[in-house]
Amino acid sequence: MNFSSDNAYGAWPEIVTALGAAAQGAAASYGYDLLTAKVRTRLCELFERDVAVFPVISGTAANVLALATLTPPHGAIFCHCESHVAVDECGAAEFFTHGAKLVGLEGEDAKLVPATLQRALAHFQKGFVHHSQPAALTITQSTELGTVYQPGEIAALSALAHAHGMKVHMDGARFANALAGLGCTPAEASWRAGVDVLSFGATKNGALGAEAVIFFHHEDVKDFEYRRKKAGHLLSKMRFVSAQLDAYLTGRRWLEHAARANELARRLANGLGKVPGAELAHPVQANAVFVRLPDRVLVRLRDKGAAFYDWGPSVGGRTLVRLVVSFATPEKDVEQFLNVANS
Amino acid sequence: MNFSSDNAYGAWPEIVTALGAAAQGAAASYGYDLLTAKVRTRLCELFERDVAVFPVISGTAANVLALATLTPPHGAIFCHCESHVAVDECGAAEFFTHGAKLVGLEGEDAKLVPATLQRALAHFQKGFVHHSQPAALTITQSTELGTVYQPGEIAALSALAHAHGMKVHMDGARFANALAGLGCTPAEASWRAGVDVLSFGATKNGALGAEAVIFFHHEDVKDFEYRRKKAGHLLSKMRFVSAQLDAYLTGRRWLEHAARANELARRLANGLGKVPGAELAHPVQANAVFVRLPDRVLVRLRDKGAAFYDWGPSVGGRTLVRLVVSFATPEKDVEQFLNVANS
Amino acid sequence: MNFSSDNAYGAWPEIVTALGAAAQGAAASYGYDLLTAKVRTRLCELFERDVAVFPVISGTAANVLALATLTPPHGAIFCHCESHVAVDECGAAEFFTHGAKLVGLEGEDAKLVPATLQRALAHFQKGFVHHSQPAALTITQSTELGTVYQPGEIAALSALAHAHGMKVHMDGARFANALAGLGCTPAEASWRAGVDVLSFGATKNGALGAEAVIFFHHEDVKDFEYRRKKAGHLLSKMRFVSAQLDAYLTGRRWLEHAARANELARRLANGLGKVPGAELAHPVQANAVFVRLPDRVLVRLRDKGAAFYDWGPSVGGRTLVRLVVSFATPEKDVEQFLNVANS
Amino acid sequence: MNFSSDNAYGAWPEIVTALGAAAQGAAASYGYDLLTAKVRTRLCELFERDVAVFPVISGTAANVLALATLTPPHGAIFCHCESHVAVDECGAAEFFTHGAKLVGLEGEDAKLVPATLQRALAHFQKGFVHHSQPAALTITQSTELGTVYQPGEIAALSALAHAHGMKVHMDGARFANALAGLGCTPAEASWRAGVDVLSFGATKNGALGAEAVIFFHHEDVKDFEYRRKKAGHLLSKMRFVSAQLDAYLTGRRWLEHAARANELARRLANGLGKVPGAELAHPVQANAVFVRLPDRVLVRLRDKGAAFYDWGPSVGGRTLVRLVVSFATPEKDVEQFLNVANS
Repeated sequence: MNFSSDNAYGAWPEIVTALGAAAQGAAASYGYDLLTAKVRTRLCELFERDVAVFPVISGTAANVLALATLTPPHGAIFCHCESHVAVDECGAAEFFTHGAKLVGLEGEDAKLVPATLQRALAHFQKGFVHHSQPAALTITQSTELGTVYQPGEIAALSALAHAHGMKVHMDGARFANALAGLGCTPAEASWRAGVDVLSFGATKNGALGAEAVIFFHHEDVKDFEYRRKKAGHLLSKMRFVSAQLDAYLTGRRWLEHAARANELARRLANGLGKVPGAELAHPVQANAVFVRLPDRVLVRLRDKGAAFYDWGPSVGGRTLVRLVVSFATPEKDVEQFLNVANS
Repeated sequence: MNFSSDNAYGAWPEIVTALGAAAQGAAASYGYDLLTAKVRTRLCELFERDVAVFPVISGTAANVLALATLTPPHGAIFCHCESHVAVDECGAAEFFTHGAKLVGLEGEDAKLVPATLQRALAHFQKGFVHHSQPAALTITQSTELGTVYQPGEIAALSALAHAHGMKVHMDGARFANALAGLGCTPAEASWRAGVDVLSFGATKNGALGAEAVIFFHHEDVKDFEYRRKKAGHLLSKMRFVSAQLDAYLTGRRWLEHAARANELARRLANGLGKVPGAELAHPVQANAVFVRLPDRVLVRLRDKGAAFYDWGPSVGGRTLVRLVVSFATPEKDVEQFLNVANS
Repeated sequence: MNFSSDNAYGAWPEIVTALGAAAQGAAASYGYDLLTAKVRTRLCELFERDVAVFPVISGTAANVLALATLTPPHGAIFCHCESHVAVDECGAAEFFTHGAKLVGLEGEDAKLVPATLQRALAHFQKGFVHHSQPAALTITQSTELGTVYQPGEIAALSALAHAHGMKVHMDGARFANALAGLGCTPAEASWRAGVDVLSFGATKNGALGAEAVIFFHHEDVKDFEYRRKKAGHLLSKMRFVSAQLDAYLTGRRWLEHAARANELARRLANGLGKVPGAELAHPVQANAVFVRLPDRVLVRLRDKGAAFYDWGPSVGGRTLVRLVVSFATPEKDVEQFLNVANS
Repeated sequence: MNFSSDNAYGAWPEIVTALGAAAQGAAASYGYDLLTAKVRTRLCELFERDVAVFPVISGTAANVLALATLTPPHGAIFCHCESHVAVDECGAAEFFTHGAKLVGLEGEDAKLVPATLQRALAHFQKGFVHHSQPAALTITQSTELGTVYQPGEIAALSALAHAHGMKVHMDGARFANALAGLGCTPAEASWRAGVDVLSFGATKNGALGAEAVIFFHHEDVKDFEYRRKKAGHLLSKMRFVSAQLDAYLTGRRWLEHAARANELARRLANGLGKVPGAELAHPVQANAVFVRLPDRVLVRLRDKGAAFYDWGPSVGGRTLVRLVVSFATPEKDVEQFLNVANS
């Protein structure tokens, strides 16, 4: 019963098989191989647009290489104050941008709204050399609290950001889970809503370590390739990242895995709703459940081997916990978890 | 007939199999898994010492994370002027160290000798705030020109470096090929000869993308783990890097693969020696051959599909080329190459 | 009637005279001159302690060189969200620290209180590699809103910071104004209250460009001198910064100038208190007045040549403005300002 | 008898007087004052062109802020291997550029020639992501060894640099001394010969601490102002740097002072030529003399109070020393030095 994170689970067998196939023979290094080209073709089709694609092996790398390309050292990056890039990357964005300022904004359910961004922007005087200059907005989809932006919500944020000369980045470490819940096309959830660059994640949904930085406008790529190289993120045997992405994007499996995880998360939420004293903290729109549960229930669950993170201290006998369902979480684990919780 | 680089070839089947096994079930993230612990145990045994081990996915990452840990921003790093870190990492060391100075030194066959280092050190006044302060020496084993340092040569360089308060790093992207040629133990070729930190490479010798930064003294580790995280090089599913290293280090396969590649390189060198007008540029001590060949021979080879890099412009009808043999280069390719060259 | 900033005014004649004297003859460069040594002696006496002293020419340089010495790239610096280092230095701290995280905290009158810091620290898990690690607390004295910390308030913050392994930095760009208001010794307002490093400002109170970074504990100096050099802040003719500081610290003139400015600020505040519709926004404890005034009064003042900054947009016919009194602001300007405001 | 450096001497009385005048009353901060505007006007006239001018307080700041504006993190900067930026700035260029590579080239008398640059460029493959990309050439005028580039020599280097898409920076810490020797106009010695950005030094020739970064093409300025601010080099009371530059540029005094220093250096060189065993190491074309002198002569000179630097170890009973003459070196010191040397 491991609900600690979606990165606790391994990888799809189809992806491992693809690695085995890619392991044969010789190929061009550093991304000049055919698999890397194929991944780009797949993503162009998927996003209905000519996109620039750069595979990397971690979400942090994808996020901060993208943000550093969009943001000069004197720039400011606006993000949610609970976002991964602000809280869980140990200052990687500040490092890769050479000192840009990360501005963390409040927002319900880990989502930003235009009014908050507007208020924040008022503190940054354009062309005033003492102030970091607004350069990028980054939003997470699905969010760190398991919620999902609607395309219209993204569009409203993007419009405001663009009106202030900023670029829009989306941290899509769980883009699959968001999309599975939205029921719209990848294009609608990204560039059609104003997103300029997407960190398209595959790791959390079943790759070993594979993310694609997708630029929707070629002119935004600028010196990205040098940045990736200079950061040690250009792999000599790039084909092995691309092979993962190629297998990941074959058919609709990536969306089905995400949809299944989302469905199990909803089941978990519904089931926990019946536990006396339980309270959902955020809407369950993707594959994570944030729920306050009585501490004695939590003890019981952990005694039975359940793994998950507390999301704050115990208050009044209850603790907020995070439960994440992955592509590979066994259905029976969900059932057992609910049984123990309700017992 | 691909002799362009040892990273042109794929991966061992045993390593792919190990990935398949690791893909099952749940495990702790970010290097707290059992496979990562096992790799450390293996490397402690292999190096006959309690070492600190940090898996990463690229040689550049291994090198510059190690060097940045050893070198403050006001430090100087001494290296060969043809070393990978000086020439082929696009300033990664300068970036990760926040502006340390890379001092490239001359040396025959891409090897440094103490006298050259001594002369260079004379230009850096200790404690003089205007001068970058000597902090690290980095050497490559086997070198970028296919030669190998003897343990005694390493020890002499290390002794000089240590006498000046510097740490010694070894770029062991091809450590296996060096060791296969030396016939000594890993310990003798590293810490017993004064090496403080080793970038232990597996990628070029048959992993998909796996290197281990090995600190031989725990006190040198300092903030390495934060640096790795901050650079996007701490993988959530670390087990997949460790699984590669674990399979790589099982038995003596890694040394056998390297020995075979070395042997084929020697055969290539010997065979090419019979080509009229051919001249070996450097001793062949590992898996690379640097040879001047008549341009008409090179045209003939490329016409037959041989891939390799020129290592300089054509001079007097001959061009210096690099031929690299990998763990998977077919023996018949070597024979065919020699046949075409001698035809 | 220039109340725009205390840096709008020039310099004391005594300081210019000292520069003239220092301009004669030859002296050692880069801070090895006698004047620089003398400044250190003066500051040791003034602070009743053996301190390390490093003159620089700007407050931003003093702050961020000090903070970068205290904070590793993976560190977090806690500050008030309206502090100069957070808002008005264009990401200098992030640049000099190579990507440390600046954590801006709320606090009335631009002052921090321990409870707020305590709450913020709860979000940073010690030793957790994903989180920036608390490394420094920086407070401003007098604050950006013209208020002053009492020694006891500083001591409480310092105790909490130290208990979490953090160092305490004080941005004393207006340390003179704070001290003039406090009526305690420099030692009581700094290291006796737990401050580890002080940016001791002279520029705003009448130097041309001179600040001293004062380390109260020699072991904290670490690589500060290399950082200063590497940033272009080690002046060859350092004696000219030291000459300013030497003249500045001669007798009690620096405190008298500050006391006079504070007194004029209070007079301004009292006088403006009688303007119908006026409202003081913050206690006037140093040389700055933050007051809401009717827009028609502001128009009248600017028509008569008064210069000052709005501190926000007009709300309900009134605007918050900042009025800063310097060491050289003519008393008659204060009177004229009050006459126009009350007319 | 202080010949240690031209920065050992103080400042012109006219410059101190100008500071006294600037110390009066209120003025706009951060470079919006009238003196800063006047300096720009003066430099536009002097250089016969509409130039962008940014005063800073140190030569290192001028050099590395300029170079960082011209060079991306993945760029390479070509310089002489004995240049100040390569040897005496503790890696400042690497820090400000966020990891660009400084490529030090050989060249007689500290001067570069096109053939050497051409050879070096051959090692940097354009668009090859593994190689730092040539971005800037920096030359020093007059050089660190007291020699001077002719306009034609500069033009040849610039043409080559521009042909490779690089910008040309000139470190003019001793631009006055070079110009005094050349007998051409400032324009001919800079932009007419292809220089894009000039660090125009005044400190060494008699200012307290004042240099101007001069961009000859406005489009090259890019984010320079943010970089200056972010580095703590934007002074609040900028007028005091500008006042120095304004007084410095009044009339032809700056050239007369430099010419006088050059003349004394020549006299020194001529007189030392008569010392048995003396040997000039480099042509004396500006205000520095590099000469090998018998060690017993050097002992005698130092016994009499002469200050100067050894420029290497004693070899065969002689040592290479550097003697620098400043704007304020007394003529009698030169005579006394020669008397002692020849006695």
